[in-house]
Amino acid sequence: MVHTKHIEQHFTGSETVRDVVIGMSDGLTVPFALAAGLAGAVSNHWLVVIAGASEMAAGAIAMGLGGYLAARSDADSYAAEEAREKREIVELPDRERDEVRDIFAGYGLTGAELEGAVDAVTAQPEPWLRFMMKEELGLEEPHPSRAVRSGTTIGVAYIAGGFVPLLPYFFPISINRALLLSAVLSIIALGLFGAAKGRFTGVSPLRSALQTMVLGGLAAGVAYAISRVISSAAGL
Amino acid sequence: MVHTKHIEQHFTGSETVRDVVIGMSDGLTVPFALAAGLAGAVSNHWLVVIAGASEMAAGAIAMGLGGYLAARSDADSYAAEEAREKREIVELPDRERDEVRDIFAGYGLTGAELEGAVDAVTAQPEPWLRFMMKEELGLEEPHPSRAVRSGTTIGVAYIAGGFVPLLPYFFPISINRALLLSAVLSIIALGLFGAAKGRFTGVSPLRSALQTMVLGGLAAGVAYAISRVISSAAGL
Repeated sequence: MVHTKHIEQHFTGSETVRDVVIGMSDGLTVPFALAAGLAGAVSNHWLVVIAGASEMAAGAIAMGLGGYLAARSDADSYAAEEAREKREIVELPDRERDEVRDIFAGYGLTGAELEGAVDAVTAQPEPWLRFMMKEELGLEEPHPSRAVRSGTTIGVAYIAGGFVPLLPYFFPISINRALLLSAVLSIIALGLFGAAKGRFTGVSPLRSALQTMVLGGLAAGVAYAISRVISSAAGL
Repeated sequence: MVHTKHIEQHFTGSETVRDVVIGMSDGLTVPFALAAGLAGAVSNHWLVVIAGASEMAAGAIAMGLGGYLAARSDADSYAAEEAREKREIVELPDRERDEVRDIFAGYGLTGAELEGAVDAVTAQPEPWLRFMMKEELGLEEPHPSRAVRSGTTIGVAYIAGGFVPLLPYFFPISINRALLLSAVLSIIALGLFGAAKGRFTGVSPLRSALQTMVLGGLAAGVAYAISRVISSAAGL
């Protein structure tokens, strides 16, 4: 993306911040809820640690490697679409010119201005191509090293988030006390994270904090309830 | 998004397909890996079911409700940016005209064509506003009911995916046999899902199938290894 000074005023978060938000959002929520669910069924705190650690590894790999593959597939798609438009500009120049004309006509250009604008944009292949990519397909060129960085950031943020709710289960305290501590720690962390996230997504910090706390609390509550139902039914 | 016939040829999947891919991708992977991890530490298959069901509930809520909130925040951002551009067109028309000129100049327009195009686009506020939103900010108007539909689709796809790896643990067979069955079922499902996903992301079906199978297998393998290490260390 190309940013001018003016555009930066509109822009409220870098892509790295966005990746941290994606990873940490789920990293705080899912291990918290999973641990709460298991705490409703087992008494050995190490089982909660094992399940939590398994989940963190799986979640970080799924989200991180998944994010990497998605970013790479975006880059591949962009390259394929670009090659296709490039070919069409050479092979079907009249049709592509008509498309440029349709786009400008949609912005209100008519008569001599319209023809002049079409002539100017289609005079050189490079601006013509960029115009088609952005106006016809709505695509912007992805950053080349984005895929690896994006995947790593999401994965690390997921693990960092997951340690918070899991921490109390490492200690030799009763499972109910660990659950209580984990819930308190997680809700505080979700609130702080939500407030910080609000600054980047343009939602008010208070509303964003409430949203993430309710989401995390709901997930943990449902997981705990499901766990109690299954463990009663299974006679555990 | 506005699609012409030509644009649809480029377009390889609806937003619903994209949401199903997002939800099912993680839904197949994470419960599979979590179950594999726990199967390395416990002998009661109901504990795997409880952990898996807790994770599915938490993951579906985190991804589904998270997707809903993200889509709503996108819509809010778009509305806020639109209001801001609208205001700037009224209050700072000269600066906004200069921005239109810069954008057209970037596509190769000069002289009378350039001024003519700028005049035509800025003649009416509505095309001017759409031009600024798309060219300056790269934003397209989100669909109003998208948030609810997107969140529901992601959540349901996550749960549907999660049932596959969990199914064998419902039956009264040894935990190792359930793990083996779960791995076979999951790898087959990941391969089929990956091949189908390749059709929509433009990656070749075989390569996409291999990618999702390796990702799922890696996540499960790491989860299993972590679980064995922790359970030995804890003396379970």
